[in-house]
Amino acid sequence: MKRKIAVLGAGSWGTVLAKVLADNGHQVELWARREELAAEITLKHTNEKYLPGIKLPAELTATSSLAEALSGKEVVVFVVPSHSMREIAREVGGLIAPGALVVHAVKGFEIDTWKRMSEVLLEELGESFAERITVLSGPSHAEEVIKKCPTTVVVASPGQETAEQVQMMFMNRYFRVYTNPDVIGVEVGGALKNIIALASGLVDGLGFGDNAKAALMTRGLAEIARLGSAMGAKPITFVGLAGVGDLVVTCTSRHSRNWRAGHKISQGKKLPEVLAEMGMVVEGIKTTKAAHALARRYDVEMPIAAQLYEVLFAGKEPALAVKELMGRGRTKELEEIVQGW
Amino acid sequence: MKRKIAVLGAGSWGTVLAKVLADNGHQVELWARREELAAEITLKHTNEKYLPGIKLPAELTATSSLAEALSGKEVVVFVVPSHSMREIAREVGGLIAPGALVVHAVKGFEIDTWKRMSEVLLEELGESFAERITVLSGPSHAEEVIKKCPTTVVVASPGQETAEQVQMMFMNRYFRVYTNPDVIGVEVGGALKNIIALASGLVDGLGFGDNAKAALMTRGLAEIARLGSAMGAKPITFVGLAGVGDLVVTCTSRHSRNWRAGHKISQGKKLPEVLAEMGMVVEGIKTTKAAHALARRYDVEMPIAAQLYEVLFAGKEPALAVKELMGRGRTKELEEIVQGW
Repeated sequence: MKRKIAVLGAGSWGTVLAKVLADNGHQVELWARREELAAEITLKHTNEKYLPGIKLPAELTATSSLAEALSGKEVVVFVVPSHSMREIAREVGGLIAPGALVVHAVKGFEIDTWKRMSEVLLEELGESFAERITVLSGPSHAEEVIKKCPTTVVVASPGQETAEQVQMMFMNRYFRVYTNPDVIGVEVGGALKNIIALASGLVDGLGFGDNAKAALMTRGLAEIARLGSAMGAKPITFVGLAGVGDLVVTCTSRHSRNWRAGHKISQGKKLPEVLAEMGMVVEGIKTTKAAHALARRYDVEMPIAAQLYEVLFAGKEPALAVKELMGRGRTKELEEIVQGW
Repeated sequence: MKRKIAVLGAGSWGTVLAKVLADNGHQVELWARREELAAEITLKHTNEKYLPGIKLPAELTATSSLAEALSGKEVVVFVVPSHSMREIAREVGGLIAPGALVVHAVKGFEIDTWKRMSEVLLEELGESFAERITVLSGPSHAEEVIKKCPTTVVVASPGQETAEQVQMMFMNRYFRVYTNPDVIGVEVGGALKNIIALASGLVDGLGFGDNAKAALMTRGLAEIARLGSAMGAKPITFVGLAGVGDLVVTCTSRHSRNWRAGHKISQGKKLPEVLAEMGMVVEGIKTTKAAHALARRYDVEMPIAAQLYEVLFAGKEPALAVKELMGRGRTKELEEIVQGW
């Protein structure tokens, strides 16, 4: 079934998802905030800023008008920055056709409220969308998807039928889509993995070795699963593409902004200096704040996030943080999750 | 509490575990099959073949006599090759003091019976050891542990007290030990991860990219968890150090024998040629046979292991195997494990 779809957000990931949908024969319109970018996509079939050197399908058009983008669409895909989600959802709320499917592929929490993206969407679009909001996540460098390298992602929705419709819409021979009922797990995994990527850069920079990095990733995932469970996720979701999968891709790629920020901090640089040098948003820093706040709210122990918080915001020495993590009391693995004795 | 401990097996991992125990103040005797190696360890405090350039503690002694190694010991740690486990366990069965703790750090299944290592131990040592057998596993390159790089492992035992005693025995400021009740999960995770490491070499060699490799690792872990569950493991154990942790270390290290074997196969070499070139055991090849047999025995779908089996043993083109994996029907993520709809 071919659909009429609006993709909101023309960064690299939004543009690539729009291309996947266009490749699958759907009629897709991209919304770009900047008018020049919309014109470039429609007329030149390129998006040089975000996907240099890539030719986009001629059928893929873009507009800078939200009303135009949404007009007559049966599906709306949000791929906007997490900090713009509420504002854009509010703006389009009245424009989305009743009965339309809503998908988002946005990783992160709302600043200060620390709400998940689907919670923000639901608040702004209204309860009637409850069964029709889906999250898409997983290990997917945009630069590889655009070249049709084999990629897998997961879509989660409270409604099985909704998830399966979204699965069919995106799936093709290079983009394999799995379904999962656990929206909370998929959202929490995708957002919190950036903390561990940041800490990975730190541990790599300190030269602690592969064992330490694997420990960080595994114990990091354990504390993400612990928080996720307290928030209502199914712990097993963290074994999946939005958990392990995304974690692996993010922590082992030296191109990741989060990894690079952590690496700089390991070399003795302080946070303001690192941010000035990078000149762009480092998602893992915001997310460390989110984890700190959520760990308190749900009364969950997150020792790695807590140490990282002190390193980033209280000037703690990274090596001391690692020493304290290694020196904690004896404990069980996955203790709140596995019961057996 | 300081213990008298025998470590059976003086390869790199056995020697390093003996050193960890000696560093912790225990009285440790290593058993080496070759008399010259035992003499080298006792007299020169080196093990040049397995740990070149490393000085071992003077207190660490070795013998090539099993009877001498076991005499008066309260703890016995098996670190022998998986194919020698039954023979050695049978030989020492009568020599182990009643009441002694038994630990093993051996990854793999027994050939043809495809039994887990603790099952083999239990059969040879007798039912009285049922609560006192512990497995130690996790992401731990020996070369890093010997340099005291921060490392984490998990110990699993049916008896909580046993697991905690083993935890206390090994734990120190560079070697952090977690406990877990799930022996089956820890053993299955440690053994089967080698299949995915082999397949990782293959996928890297084919140039499919980071998304594909993360997909392989995640979906590989999902099918390991599926088989493990059918065998009686707790699925969540695969999120832990013996699952994700060990998988990450093995799949991302280009020094891994399994990865290298997979990489050679991706370049068009056939299995006999690869084995001849490597001149040593590639654990992942045996384990692919184990997975194939166990998947049938427990009636579990393992699409990645099945494709790898065909590539290794039936000359299938690796690229075709990947194409078939990507082209499978639509499915749910973790479907036998997560219920929600």
